[in-house]
Amino acid sequence: MSAVNAVNRQMTLRRYPDGVPREDDFAVIESAIPEIADGEVLCRAIYLTVDPYIRVHISPSMSIGYAPTTPLGAPIPGEAVLQVVRSRHAKIREGDYVAGFGGWQDYCALHGDALRAVDLSLAPLSAHLGSLGMPGLTAYAGMRKLADAKLGETVFVSAALGGVGAVAGQLAKLQGCRVVGVSSSAEKCRYAVDELGYDACLDRTAPDFLGQVAAACPGGIDVNFENAGGEVFWAALQNMKAYGRVIICGLVSGYNDDAPPPGPDLSPNLLRTIALGRLVVKGLMVADYWDLRPAFLQEVGGMIREGRFKTREYVVTGLENAGRAMIDMLEGRNFGKTVVRITDDAPL
Amino acid sequence: MSAVNAVNRQMTLRRYPDGVPREDDFAVIESAIPEIADGEVLCRAIYLTVDPYIRVHISPSMSIGYAPTTPLGAPIPGEAVLQVVRSRHAKIREGDYVAGFGGWQDYCALHGDALRAVDLSLAPLSAHLGSLGMPGLTAYAGMRKLADAKLGETVFVSAALGGVGAVAGQLAKLQGCRVVGVSSSAEKCRYAVDELGYDACLDRTAPDFLGQVAAACPGGIDVNFENAGGEVFWAALQNMKAYGRVIICGLVSGYNDDAPPPGPDLSPNLLRTIALGRLVVKGLMVADYWDLRPAFLQEVGGMIREGRFKTREYVVTGLENAGRAMIDMLEGRNFGKTVVRITDDAPL
Repeated sequence: MSAVNAVNRQMTLRRYPDGVPREDDFAVIESAIPEIADGEVLCRAIYLTVDPYIRVHISPSMSIGYAPTTPLGAPIPGEAVLQVVRSRHAKIREGDYVAGFGGWQDYCALHGDALRAVDLSLAPLSAHLGSLGMPGLTAYAGMRKLADAKLGETVFVSAALGGVGAVAGQLAKLQGCRVVGVSSSAEKCRYAVDELGYDACLDRTAPDFLGQVAAACPGGIDVNFENAGGEVFWAALQNMKAYGRVIICGLVSGYNDDAPPPGPDLSPNLLRTIALGRLVVKGLMVADYWDLRPAFLQEVGGMIREGRFKTREYVVTGLENAGRAMIDMLEGRNFGKTVVRITDDAPL
Repeated sequence: MSAVNAVNRQMTLRRYPDGVPREDDFAVIESAIPEIADGEVLCRAIYLTVDPYIRVHISPSMSIGYAPTTPLGAPIPGEAVLQVVRSRHAKIREGDYVAGFGGWQDYCALHGDALRAVDLSLAPLSAHLGSLGMPGLTAYAGMRKLADAKLGETVFVSAALGGVGAVAGQLAKLQGCRVVGVSSSAEKCRYAVDELGYDACLDRTAPDFLGQVAAACPGGIDVNFENAGGEVFWAALQNMKAYGRVIICGLVSGYNDDAPPPGPDLSPNLLRTIALGRLVVKGLMVADYWDLRPAFLQEVGGMIREGRFKTREYVVTGLENAGRAMIDMLEGRNFGKTVVRITDDAPL
């Protein structure tokens, strides 16, 4: 057990980003180590998550019911893999590895009941923020509860290597589907096919991307597991098979926009396509599916332990680089699910 | 049995409408009475239907797979209530009342197997194009197969007095839902409440329409049965309850548009609202549900016969006025489901 530092470094917002965040929108500040009350635990962060949804939480224009906008000067929110350094909770001991919504800071005080145990026998710590964490559970819920994907159907997965996409794609493959992914470089697409088992993966930056989607899905798309939005969404929509399902999980391409993009207004086209195609479009929020976690950990965790399921994190080192890590993720410069390692004296 | 006339009048397109159709976009022409082959029947039209979807069929920019654009000079397509005047089909006799896709013309030749019988004991002939016809079956399919409306839930119905809306609203009420309609005048809204049993009906032309929607749906909308699109759709979307269902049946507000409306592009907002609200948006096409017709006729037809279910047609007289009837319908000047009566020597 390492000693507790004298101060708590917190990665905060200096100002709200205007479009793509810039590094100086973020600022590290120092604060006191929090005190803990009965039932609470003090944790030090080992890994922070950097997920697309966090961009939504630092935008005043997208303030939404379940997650009010992060105040300036407060640590940026998000899940973290943590080690307990002090405990006033009956069932949690110092030294335990846990995950919880600690935010972007060295230390956090949380109620012990709000933490989940992290099982190092399943996968390294970092994977518990990705394939075995909230993104993985999101993918599992979408594929198992909403997609209704049948043997031989074509499943389309945008952000194919991301925290959600990589799990959705592999699960679809295990369900006997033909899986077509989209990523942002030829190299990532090769990885998706060679390592994750995608039947095809298309580089959305290629000039003939639209034609490639049609060619890769000759019979049409049965399930679009949407993580991107924007042009990738429209490319998939044009290729949906009748009665296809569209799972709206993430829309990262628009998360830097403070206002609706310029016209024309394509929403009538979208509604018309849904009607004519008898499509079913479903919204997915992982918070509805916490009860699936035990089954998810057993199934996906078991496959990761046995090497039958791939997980890849893009690891950035140092709390001070978390803002840069988010910018790189939003611009597609990551390769795998982005996490930030905060300390170097803990297991991987 | 009336004698067959010497010529067949057909209501055709002189040119494709640019925006809202004008009366001189339409032209009556005369052609020969068609010959019939074995299995076919010659019918005279008694009532033609004037439904929003017909506007789509006379627009080259909206040509869609299931219904290619109507050629200039050809009769405008649509269902009709017909009387058989000559039959070369074993099971159909002269004098029978039937319904089929005869289009906007005095006479049509159709294969007897493509016709459906019309049961005058259930409702007057005109109702077989409305509440007991394709619009009614559309509403029945949407409410029974897609809406998943539960007791006490709030169902929102745009175009509340239309061929589809009036049936959807009454079915929702019979299922124990709270039903809020939208129409285009205070008088129609009174009819919806007093006669059709809507719990509330809102005039979409009222200056505070948006506020009225929120006030009429204090707990939010569980099911939006969408017939209109446009501003009415967005008003409903903003008031959807979490896990609400949106049935995309019709989008009449946009049927006069040859191109997407100007920006901003609201499609990202739409997708975001679906995701955050965990909404389920489903496309509805009646052609998927012909097998429901017997149950539909028994149930809804039975209630109409017993006076427990209201049906109201807006009857325009004369084939030559069918174009005007369509214009009036698209601009909301009809009161009930629009039909055109072609002949005056048949029962109502």
